[in-house]
Amino acid sequence: MTAAVNFKNCGSVLVTGASRGLGLQIVDILASGGFSPGKIIATTRNPANTQKLQELAEKHPNVHIITLDVLNQQSIENCVEEVGQLVQGEGLNCLINNAGINVVADFHTVTAEKMMENFNTNAVAPLMITKAFLPLLKLAASKGGAGGASGMGIQRAAVINMTSLLGSVELNWGERANNFKWYPYRTSKSALNMVSRCMAVDLEPDGILCMAIHPGWVRTDMGGSQAPLSPDESISSVLSVIGGLTEKDHGSFLNFTGEVLPW
Amino acid sequence: MTAAVNFKNCGSVLVTGASRGLGLQIVDILASGGFSPGKIIATTRNPANTQKLQELAEKHPNVHIITLDVLNQQSIENCVEEVGQLVQGEGLNCLINNAGINVVADFHTVTAEKMMENFNTNAVAPLMITKAFLPLLKLAASKGGAGGASGMGIQRAAVINMTSLLGSVELNWGERANNFKWYPYRTSKSALNMVSRCMAVDLEPDGILCMAIHPGWVRTDMGGSQAPLSPDESISSVLSVIGGLTEKDHGSFLNFTGEVLPW
Ligand SMILES: NC(=O)c1ccc[n+]([C@@H]2O[C@H](COP(=O)([O-])OP(=O)(O)OC[C@H]3O[C@@H](n4cnc5c(N)ncnc54)[C@H](OP(=O)(O)O)[C@@H]3O)[C@@H](O)[C@H]2O)c1
Ligand SMILES: NC(=O)c1ccc[n+]([C@@H]2O[C@H](COP(=O)([O-])OP(=O)(O)OC[C@H]3O[C@@H](n4cnc5c(N)ncnc54)[C@H](OP(=O)(O)O)[C@@H]3O)[C@@H](O)[C@H]2O)c1
Repeated sequence: MTAAVNFKNCGSVLVTGASRGLGLQIVDILASGGFSPGKIIATTRNPANTQKLQELAEKHPNVHIITLDVLNQQSIENCVEEVGQLVQGEGLNCLINNAGINVVADFHTVTAEKMMENFNTNAVAPLMITKAFLPLLKLAASKGGAGGASGMGIQRAAVINMTSLLGSVELNWGERANNFKWYPYRTSKSALNMVSRCMAVDLEPDGILCMAIHPGWVRTDMGGSQAPLSPDESISSVLSVIGGLTEKDHGSFLNFTGEVLPW
Repeated sequence: MTAAVNFKNCGSVLVTGASRGLGLQIVDILASGGFSPGKIIATTRNPANTQKLQELAEKHPNVHIITLDVLNQQSIENCVEEVGQLVQGEGLNCLINNAGINVVADFHTVTAEKMMENFNTNAVAPLMITKAFLPLLKLAASKGGAGGASGMGIQRAAVINMTSLLGSVELNWGERANNFKWYPYRTSKSALNMVSRCMAVDLEPDGILCMAIHPGWVRTDMGGSQAPLSPDESISSVLSVIGGLTEKDHGSFLNFTGEVLPW
């Protein structure tokens, strides 16, 4: 069922929030596929509690588990240090900012605290993590990857932000707007989209691709059991989109099917 | 120079951040114009320090100064209480969420704290204020205004969010993106745009119009001396757009000239 995913020319991928859900599925597919990246760095805030991840790491020697709480600056810096030792002079090719939360609240139940909490994890953390990994991303980008120093893509260096269709302001209207009236989550993902676009502008001179992707509505703890897609269906498609990214996708907001979404 | 601004059919307008800049200019033009609203409620976190506002209130009996720190929930509730006593059974017709800050920081200087601070004032506060004023807005909307219970506009009830072009994710690209690489500010205004759109969806059943407007780049403390527009030029145009809003503008993002902007 899993689609062909080609990460062969990608030396290293780091995924945040790899304990379960989509993050875990990314690690699983990347590790099990025929075209696996050199190093798969699965980060989680609590490695001891993630049995499935431990099993994947035992089975696949290219899976490395490193501790990362995306809200903790010290944890981010420790993680960068460990990753630096792992990838050495090769740098980090692909950073996937996947960790996220959904603080469910509608107009009547929303509070300032709920807004801040969701914004912090979903929009601020990806920014702080990308800043911290910049030296390693630059190092990878400077090598030029398989395609040489021109062009962009995961063979060189890329930052992928796991956003949501619910972060599209344009699509939050009409029929669609009557479901999922989640102020903290929607706002945090719109904010992440702006962070993603701002970073695309700033990372471009170094040849680092940056974009935001919507994984579809998926059956995970967050997506719930009603969602139409399995994690395997979603992530197979997401990874094949990520694997094919070029400079024309820089700064974009794509669906898991590869189509452009409105902001 | 001031354009004709018609707020005659609007019983009451409340402006946040009326101590200086665009908020003060709104109060000035509304009070001095030939078609002034019944009650102009100028709010500021520190009434004692706002000499110009005091002068306007002395000159125009329809200008009322009320204390409001947009970040303080108790202050918001006290303000609602005072406004309720002032407008009585008429409710509040027009709420202008104008107060805002610009925490300047680029990719290298941005911190989580700066992101949170700007988001709190620019995106969360307008949401919490609108929630608190909902009963007074509903009351005004239920009267139907001059045009009767159908239709939307400031004669009935409206929430106006002072956003920025810098909050447009779409426009943050190419030539434009090379200026104003302000992560906290841009992100807070994208977030405000989503809040505005979410609120439009939720306020619609009560007949309360909600939209976001960009005032142009204006010479205020925030805009700086290089800005092309004077506060009078900007706000004359902004108020004439607000004065003419109808249901077709509900949920929109407009320039001060009245054109639709991309999210
Ligand atoms: N599922 C969907 O339908 C859907 C749709 C659109 C977008 N998305 C996005 O896709 C991403 C993954 O979602 P999911 O469905 O896999 O969610 P999930 O099943 O709830 O898993 C969330 C993951 O994020 C991690 N996480 C949360 N806060 C963290 C922190 N402070 N530090 C480190 N890790 C943290 C969790 O780790 P712990 O196990 O330690 O809590 C977990 O691994 C999210 O960004 C989500 O918004 C999902
Ligand atoms: N100027 C421009 O070019 C421009 C362009 C696009 C959008 N805007 C937006 O237009 C709005 C007004 O901007 P401006 O140029 O007039 O800015 P400004 O000159 O810096 O004035 C900001 C106003 O917001 C108030 N404020 C800030 N935090 C507050 C709080 N916690 N509680 C109550 N009031 C608070 C300030 O009150 P204090 O006096 O007490 O500090 C002041 O009245 C802002 O939302 C801004 O983002 C401006």
